[in-house]
Amino acid sequence: MTVLGVGLLGSSVLRALAERHPGVARRAWSRSAGSRGKAGAWATVATTPAEACRGADLVIAACPVDTLAGLLGEARPGIGSTAFVTDVGSTKRGAHAAASALADPSRFVGSHPMAGSERGGADEGRADLFDGRACVVTTSEGTLPEAARAVEAFWASLGARVCKMEPRAHDAAVAEISHLPHATSSVLAALLGARAPRADLAAGGLRDTTRVAAGDPDLWVPILLENADHVAPLLGALAAGATELRDALSRGDAAAVRAILSRGRDFRRGL
Amino acid sequence: MTVLGVGLLGSSVLRALAERHPGVARRAWSRSAGSRGKAGAWATVATTPAEACRGADLVIAACPVDTLAGLLGEARPGIGSTAFVTDVGSTKRGAHAAASALADPSRFVGSHPMAGSERGGADEGRADLFDGRACVVTTSEGTLPEAARAVEAFWASLGARVCKMEPRAHDAAVAEISHLPHATSSVLAALLGARAPRADLAAGGLRDTTRVAAGDPDLWVPILLENADHVAPLLGALAAGATELRDALSRGDAAAVRAILSRGRDFRRGL
Repeated sequence: MTVLGVGLLGSSVLRALAERHPGVARRAWSRSAGSRGKAGAWATVATTPAEACRGADLVIAACPVDTLAGLLGEARPGIGSTAFVTDVGSTKRGAHAAASALADPSRFVGSHPMAGSERGGADEGRADLFDGRACVVTTSEGTLPEAARAVEAFWASLGARVCKMEPRAHDAAVAEISHLPHATSSVLAALLGARAPRADLAAGGLRDTTRVAAGDPDLWVPILLENADHVAPLLGALAAGATELRDALSRGDAAAVRAILSRGRDFRRGL
Repeated sequence: MTVLGVGLLGSSVLRALAERHPGVARRAWSRSAGSRGKAGAWATVATTPAEACRGADLVIAACPVDTLAGLLGEARPGIGSTAFVTDVGSTKRGAHAAASALADPSRFVGSHPMAGSERGGADEGRADLFDGRACVVTTSEGTLPEAARAVEAFWASLGARVCKMEPRAHDAAVAEISHLPHATSSVLAALLGARAPRADLAAGGLRDTTRVAAGDPDLWVPILLENADHVAPLLGALAAGATELRDALSRGDAAAVRAILSRGRDFRRGL
């Protein structure tokens, strides 16, 4: 198995493989020399993506979503005709489009393990990162069924709960449960950052609400842009909701304020 | 010492007193028969607020902000002329206005221990709830200096970091660091609740961002309404920020998206 990209997710795949499937040969490559050095603890490290892929049965590309097509193009000369290929990105229509860089896109299956963190990098990886977490696996019309089965079995073997979806349905779903919360957190944190608030007084609410805003813009800007057709209308709805609550507060309308807070409480308590 | 109201904060005060100052006599009253029953574990329980206050050197009213004036009015016949009175509410201009229900408002000092939780009730209280947490203490022009000193010493003795502020400055500060994050979380959760999202796929980001939305509307509707003049403009700014990010996404403006996310990351990492 070959992992291309050794950040939080890539290093977690390597650690999980080393722990759960020690008999499986592991190869890795990373664009960063620092991460390549770290990857040596869990894999044989190659100097190019193509070299890392030679002989692999499964290639896992664990890179920012906007670099996937380029990475697969670099890896293409090394990917054998019987290898399956997957990724770990947070958008899946873009991932299937990027798969056209492969010699045989029918052997590509999209993956999205729901296990990111605002703390990235190889040092943050954990062998149990996928344990009990959802992992969406996506296929396009041309995807080989055996490719999908192999990728599903791979994630299940790392402990993930596999859920199959169409790429578009995935992107619509994560726009609501991940990309909108992230965007909301960023907007709130950016607003507060412009105001020099009394953060020394803050309790857990501020920290929780803004936690994901600490995520790396290099990862998140491409995600939000690739899924903009889903995320932008949700941000419009958020703006409308904020305006509705503002107006209810401004006119002292306790019933309207209560209706919004009660809907929010009911949703959160149902999680 | 007398605690009126035995929810999360009131029961935590009683527990902390029992643990840190076991020699101090503790009396309590709660409007709820269930909480009165529980309060017996840490205090002598009275059947009226006035009875609970008789002989107390310090009365701590731990009730929703919109019930403070009524509670102080009920307690008034039992509050001695040498007693100091404080509260624990999240808005402080309203608390000082409510203090006019007392025979001697100059003996009232506002308190806001920054230690709430979305999980309320006597069972959630903890003796160490205030340990290391900020506690804002507010005074008005007429407040007796010895009352402020007594209330500051009280919170410090429970482990809190005491911070003195004017009521209006407090309300402006917590609008940013607490009330806006809460309102944002509620708006986001209410929006998602109307859409039946795939919460089964969600990771920590959704849970963190919406955690405080689980708070009790009976507590939070009055807080937001009492501080509406500060919170409403911030919600307007949030709506503007969400619209700005929406528009940047819609036109594929990576630089504008990155600017927002980077400002948010910088604020969060600075916390």
